[in-house]
Amino acid sequence: MANSAVGIIMGSRSDWGVMENAVQILDQLGVSYETKVVSAHRTPDRLYDYARSARERGLKAIIAGAGGAAHLPGMAAAMTPVPVLGVPIDATVLQGVDALMSIVQMPKGVPVATFAVGTPGAINAALFAAAMLANEDEAIRDALDRYREAQSAGVPINPFD
Amino acid sequence: MANSAVGIIMGSRSDWGVMENAVQILDQLGVSYETKVVSAHRTPDRLYDYARSARERGLKAIIAGAGGAAHLPGMAAAMTPVPVLGVPIDATVLQGVDALMSIVQMPKGVPVATFAVGTPGAINAALFAAAMLANEDEAIRDALDRYREAQSAGVPINPFD
Amino acid sequence: MANSAVGIIMGSRSDWGVMENAVQILDQLGVSYETKVVSAHRTPDRLYDYARSARERGLKAIIAGAGGAAHLPGMAAAMTPVPVLGVPIDATVLQGVDALMSIVQMPKGVPVATFAVGTPGAINAALFAAAMLANEDEAIRDALDRYREAQSAGVPINPFD
Amino acid sequence: MANSAVGIIMGSRSDWGVMENAVQILDQLGVSYETKVVSAHRTPDRLYDYARSARERGLKAIIAGAGGAAHLPGMAAAMTPVPVLGVPIDATVLQGVDALMSIVQMPKGVPVATFAVGTPGAINAALFAAAMLANEDEAIRDALDRYREAQSAGVPINPFD
Amino acid sequence: MANSAVGIIMGSRSDWGVMENAVQILDQLGVSYETKVVSAHRTPDRLYDYARSARERGLKAIIAGAGGAAHLPGMAAAMTPVPVLGVPIDATVLQGVDALMSIVQMPKGVPVATFAVGTPGAINAALFAAAMLANEDEAIRDALDRYREAQSAGVPINPFD
Amino acid sequence: MANSAVGIIMGSRSDWGVMENAVQILDQLGVSYETKVVSAHRTPDRLYDYARSARERGLKAIIAGAGGAAHLPGMAAAMTPVPVLGVPIDATVLQGVDALMSIVQMPKGVPVATFAVGTPGAINAALFAAAMLANEDEAIRDALDRYREAQSAGVPINPFD
Amino acid sequence: MANSAVGIIMGSRSDWGVMENAVQILDQLGVSYETKVVSAHRTPDRLYDYARSARERGLKAIIAGAGGAAHLPGMAAAMTPVPVLGVPIDATVLQGVDALMSIVQMPKGVPVATFAVGTPGAINAALFAAAMLANEDEAIRDALDRYREAQSAGVPINPFD
Amino acid sequence: MANSAVGIIMGSRSDWGVMENAVQILDQLGVSYETKVVSAHRTPDRLYDYARSARERGLKAIIAGAGGAAHLPGMAAAMTPVPVLGVPIDATVLQGVDALMSIVQMPKGVPVATFAVGTPGAINAALFAAAMLANEDEAIRDALDRYREAQSAGVPINPFD
Repeated sequence: MANSAVGIIMGSRSDWGVMENAVQILDQLGVSYETKVVSAHRTPDRLYDYARSARERGLKAIIAGAGGAAHLPGMAAAMTPVPVLGVPIDATVLQGVDALMSIVQMPKGVPVATFAVGTPGAINAALFAAAMLANEDEAIRDALDRYREAQSAGVPINPFD
Repeated sequence: MANSAVGIIMGSRSDWGVMENAVQILDQLGVSYETKVVSAHRTPDRLYDYARSARERGLKAIIAGAGGAAHLPGMAAAMTPVPVLGVPIDATVLQGVDALMSIVQMPKGVPVATFAVGTPGAINAALFAAAMLANEDEAIRDALDRYREAQSAGVPINPFD
Repeated sequence: MANSAVGIIMGSRSDWGVMENAVQILDQLGVSYETKVVSAHRTPDRLYDYARSARERGLKAIIAGAGGAAHLPGMAAAMTPVPVLGVPIDATVLQGVDALMSIVQMPKGVPVATFAVGTPGAINAALFAAAMLANEDEAIRDALDRYREAQSAGVPINPFD
Repeated sequence: MANSAVGIIMGSRSDWGVMENAVQILDQLGVSYETKVVSAHRTPDRLYDYARSARERGLKAIIAGAGGAAHLPGMAAAMTPVPVLGVPIDATVLQGVDALMSIVQMPKGVPVATFAVGTPGAINAALFAAAMLANEDEAIRDALDRYREAQSAGVPINPFD
Repeated sequence: MANSAVGIIMGSRSDWGVMENAVQILDQLGVSYETKVVSAHRTPDRLYDYARSARERGLKAIIAGAGGAAHLPGMAAAMTPVPVLGVPIDATVLQGVDALMSIVQMPKGVPVATFAVGTPGAINAALFAAAMLANEDEAIRDALDRYREAQSAGVPINPFD
Repeated sequence: MANSAVGIIMGSRSDWGVMENAVQILDQLGVSYETKVVSAHRTPDRLYDYARSARERGLKAIIAGAGGAAHLPGMAAAMTPVPVLGVPIDATVLQGVDALMSIVQMPKGVPVATFAVGTPGAINAALFAAAMLANEDEAIRDALDRYREAQSAGVPINPFD
Repeated sequence: MANSAVGIIMGSRSDWGVMENAVQILDQLGVSYETKVVSAHRTPDRLYDYARSARERGLKAIIAGAGGAAHLPGMAAAMTPVPVLGVPIDATVLQGVDALMSIVQMPKGVPVATFAVGTPGAINAALFAAAMLANEDEAIRDALDRYREAQSAGVPINPFD
Repeated sequence: MANSAVGIIMGSRSDWGVMENAVQILDQLGVSYETKVVSAHRTPDRLYDYARSARERGLKAIIAGAGGAAHLPGMAAAMTPVPVLGVPIDATVLQGVDALMSIVQMPKGVPVATFAVGTPGAINAALFAAAMLANEDEAIRDALDRYREAQSAGVPINPFD
C-alpha cells in the first residue's frame, strides 16, 4: 500500500457506493491511491495509526468520507499535516446536513477542505486532489486539462437532444 | 485528580463560561469531579490519554462540551466505555446547530448522551450525571431529590410578582 | 414486570419498528428490561403512573422514544428522578427534526439524554443504558466490552470486499 | 380565580414579558382571564391540577406560552378538553424554532392551536381566544369588531409620515 | 350550504387527500360543515366572498388548508372575524416548511390558529373546532369526550401485540 | 399619484427603513414611482383596490415588501396582471426565512419575482424594475448602463485601501 | 435563433424536465423564445458569450434554471442588463434549498428575480416574463388575461368531484 | 504581484475583516501571496482575467471569500485549473448559511474546497493552502509543523487559569 499519492478512507463499508466515484476519477487521471475503511468511532486506533503514518508513507492528500456525526475527516486532520479533504455522506434521515455541519465547521487551526454532500462531493474531492498534485506533476496536469476540456465539450447545446 | 466520579472536559478554554455551570451543579449535589481542557483537534494525544485511562481512574461519567464541528464527545466515547455526556456549545455564527448535529447524530454503536445547546445543556448534563450516580449512592440521591423539590417549590404562582 | 433495570417506553405502537432495536441490544448484553406503549398525549395518566412508580419499581434508566412534538421523554423526566434517555423518531414529514428539537432542547433543571434520530438512536440509547449499569455490574461491563471489541474487529479493511 | 373565561399559563416567570401582551389584549376586549406560572417540567403536579380542573372551573380557552422543548401547551391539551392555544417563546439560542416545533407538531388526536413565535403570537392567541368567545358573546364580538376596525383605520397611507 | 358550523376550505383540489381527514372527524363528532375549494391566488374573488359572508352565514370556525406560500388561511382571517384554523400542507419539495412558515408566522393583529403539517394537522384542526363548539354545545361535548376516552383506551399496552 | 411606472407598497410603516432603499434607486435612475402602506392582513380592502386598479393606473411593476407570513406580494399578484416584485423583510425572530418562504414559494399560476431578504432585496427589486422598463425606455436604459458601469468601476482593487 | 424575446437557459441537460414547463407556457401565450444548455461551471465561455450578446440579440428576458450551488442566473445577470429570472432546481439531496439560497440571496447591485423551487418556479418564471412583455404587447396581454381567466374559472367548487 | 504562491480574493472590500486572518497565517508561515478585491457580480471581467491568468502567473492556490449568493469561488474554479479554496462569509441576515450553500454544493466536475463560515474558515483556508505547498516545500513544511506544535502546546490544562 506504500507510495500512493492519495489515501481514500471512509467511515463504513456502506460509504463505498459514494466513495468509489472518487476512485474512478483518480483512475481516469492516473493518480495513485489506496482505499481503506477507517471508522473514527469504531476503530479509533486504526485511525490513529493511519493518520500518524500518512506523511511518512508519502501521502499527499487524504480523502475522507463519512456520514452522520462525521468525525473521520476532522480527526484525521488533527493527527496529520497531510491535507485532508472531507466528503459529507447522506447516511441518515437528516439528508447529509448533519455530516456537512460536522465536517465543514472545523474550528480554526485544523482545516478540512469540504466538498458537496454525496457523490458530487466524492467526485470533486478527487478532482481537487488531482489539481493539488497537478501543481507539481505534468502528467496529472495534462490529464486534468483534458478532463476539463472534455467536460466542457460534452455539454450539449440543446437541452432536448 | 484521581478518584473523581465525573470528568468535565471541554474543547477550548473559551467553553468554560458554559461548562462552569455543570461544575456548580456537581458542587451543589456533592458529586466529585475533575475539569480539563481537552481539544480533540489541537490535542488529540491528550484526548487519547484522557479517554483511555478514564475507567481505570474511576470515572463513572464524562461530560464533554464543544462547539462548531464538535468531535470531542464522540471521540471520547469511541475510546472509553465510560458513559459520555455531550454539551453542544454555541460558538459559531451557526448558533450551535453545527455542534448539536456533530454530537447528537452519532452513528449506531458509539453513544453520546446529548443535552441542549449551551448553558441549559451544561446544567442538565451535570444533573443527569448525578442521577446516574444516585442509582447507587444514597447521599447523591437525597441531594438530587432535595434539588428537584426545591426547584419545584421555587416556581412562583404569579408571573408578575 | 417488576425488577427490570431498564424501562423502554414509546409514544405509539408504530414506534416499535425503531425501538425494538434497543430491545435487541439489551437482550444481547444481558440487561433486564420491560416494554410499554405510553402516550404522553393520549394516555397522560398512564405516563403519570409509570413515571411516578419508576424508582420504587427498581428502574435504573428509562428509554423513551417518540416522534413529532415528542413530549414523552421530557414529561417522564419531569416526574421521576430515574435517568431518562430520549430517542427522537422520524414520524412526520419534517424527518425527525421536530422530535429532535422537542427532546434535546429541555430547559435547565430537567435533563433528558438525547440520542440520534431513529434506529441509530435507539441502539445507542440501549448501549448507553448498559454503560451506565456497567459502572456497577461486572457482567454487563464484560458484555459491553465484548460488544465493543467485536464491533471494532468487525470493521473491514477493504471497502469493496 | 374562579369564573374566568381564559386561563393564561406560562412555563417560567421569564415568559411574562411576552405573555403580558396577551393580557393587555384581553383587558382591552373585556375578556376575563387568570394568569399563572405552570412549568410542565418543574411543576408537573401543578400542571395536572390546572388542566384537570380547567373545564369545571369554567375556562373556555387556555393560552399557554413556553420556550425550548415546550411541552406545556401539549400536555395541557392532553389533560383537558378545553381548547389550548400555544405560544412558542424565543428563549434559547435556537430562536424559538425549537419551541415552534415542540408545539405545532402535535400528533393527531390532541390539538394545540399554535401562533407565531414571541410577542406577535401572544397577541394573536389572545385575539383568537376573544374571537372564539365572540361566537356566543355579543359584547366581546362588538369589542373585537371595534378592535379590527381601529386596526385597519390605523394603518397609515404614507410610509414616511 | 347555509347553517353549517364549520367551513372547510382548501387552496386546491389536490389538498383534498389531506383535508378529508378533517371531514371524517367532524362527521364522527356530529359537527355540521361545508367544504369548498377556494384558492387565494387563483380565485381571490371567491375568497373575498367566502370570508366576507362567513359570519352572517353562521360559521363558527373556518378550517383552511394550503401548501407552498400558503396565503389562504391568513387572507381569510384578514377578511372575517370568524376564527380561522390553518393546516399547512406538504405540497412542495420543501416538505411543508414553506406552508408552515406562511401560516404560523402571521403578524400581530390577525390570528390564524395553526396545526401540524399534513394529515395530523387536518385531524387536529377538526378536533379543535369541535372543542370550540363544545364550549356551548352539550352534544358535541359528549361526543368529544367519548372520542378522547376511546382514543386513550385504544392505546395498547404492549408495542408488539 | 397617477401615471407612475412603479408602485412601491409595504405591509407596515416599519418596513420603510428597508423599502426606502428601493425609492433611492428609482430616484437615481429617473423612474417614476408611488409609495403606499398596504397591509394585506389589516387593510385587505386597500390591497384589493390597489391591485385591481394597478393596470389602468398605468403601473408597469409593483414592488411589495413584507415580513413574517408575508402575503402582500402574492395577493397583489393574484389580483393584477401587472408584474409583482417581492421583497422579504427580516421582521421577526426567524430572520426573514418566514418571509422568504411566504413569498418565493408561490404556487404555479401566480408568479412573484422574489429578491434577497432585506435591504439588498429592496435595492435589487428597484434595479430589476428599471431593467424591465429599460427594454422600452432609452433614458432608463442609459441610466441603468451608467449605474452598472459606475458600480463596476467603484470596486477597489485593494481590500485594505 | 435571433429575435426571440425570451432566452431559456439551464445548467444541465438534466434540468430540461423542469424547464420545459416554461417552454410550454411561452408557447401557449405566443411568446417567442430560444433554449440552450449553458453551464456556468463547465462552459463559462458559453455563458460569457450568451450573456454579453443577449441585449443586442434582442432578448427582453432570460430565464435561467440551475441546481446545487446555482451560479448560472447570477452570473448571467452580472454580464447583461437584460432582466434575469432564476429558477432553483431540486437537483441534490438538499432538496433545492441550496439552489434557492444561491439564487435569491444575490448581493445588492445585481438582481435576479427568483421563483419557487422546481416546476412551479419554471411555470411562474415564464408567466412573469410574459407579464413583463405584456406591458408593451397587446397580443401577449390578451393571451395572459385569457390564461388567468381560464385558470380562475378552472378551479372547481367541490374538492371531491 | 507576480510569482506569489497564493492568491487571496474577496467579493467586496467589506470582506477584508474576515480575509485578513488568512493573510496573517500566510505571513506567519512564510507563504507568498497577493490580495485583490474581485467581485463575481460587479466585476465579472476582472474575475475572468484573474482566473484565466492564474496558472501562468504561478499561483498554486486561490483563496476566495464571499457572502450571500457567493459565486466568486465557484466561478473562479470554473475558469482555472488552479485549486480554489472557498470561505463563506456571514454577510447577510441568513448568517452565512446562504454563502455556505452557494460554495459547498458545487456540482460534480468543478470542485471548490470549502471551509467554515467566517474567520475560522479564513484561517483554515490559509493553513490548508500552506499544507498543500508543504508537500513540496520543506521550509513551509517546517513552519507548519512548528505552528501545529505550538498550537497543541498552547492549549491550557485548566479551563479557569
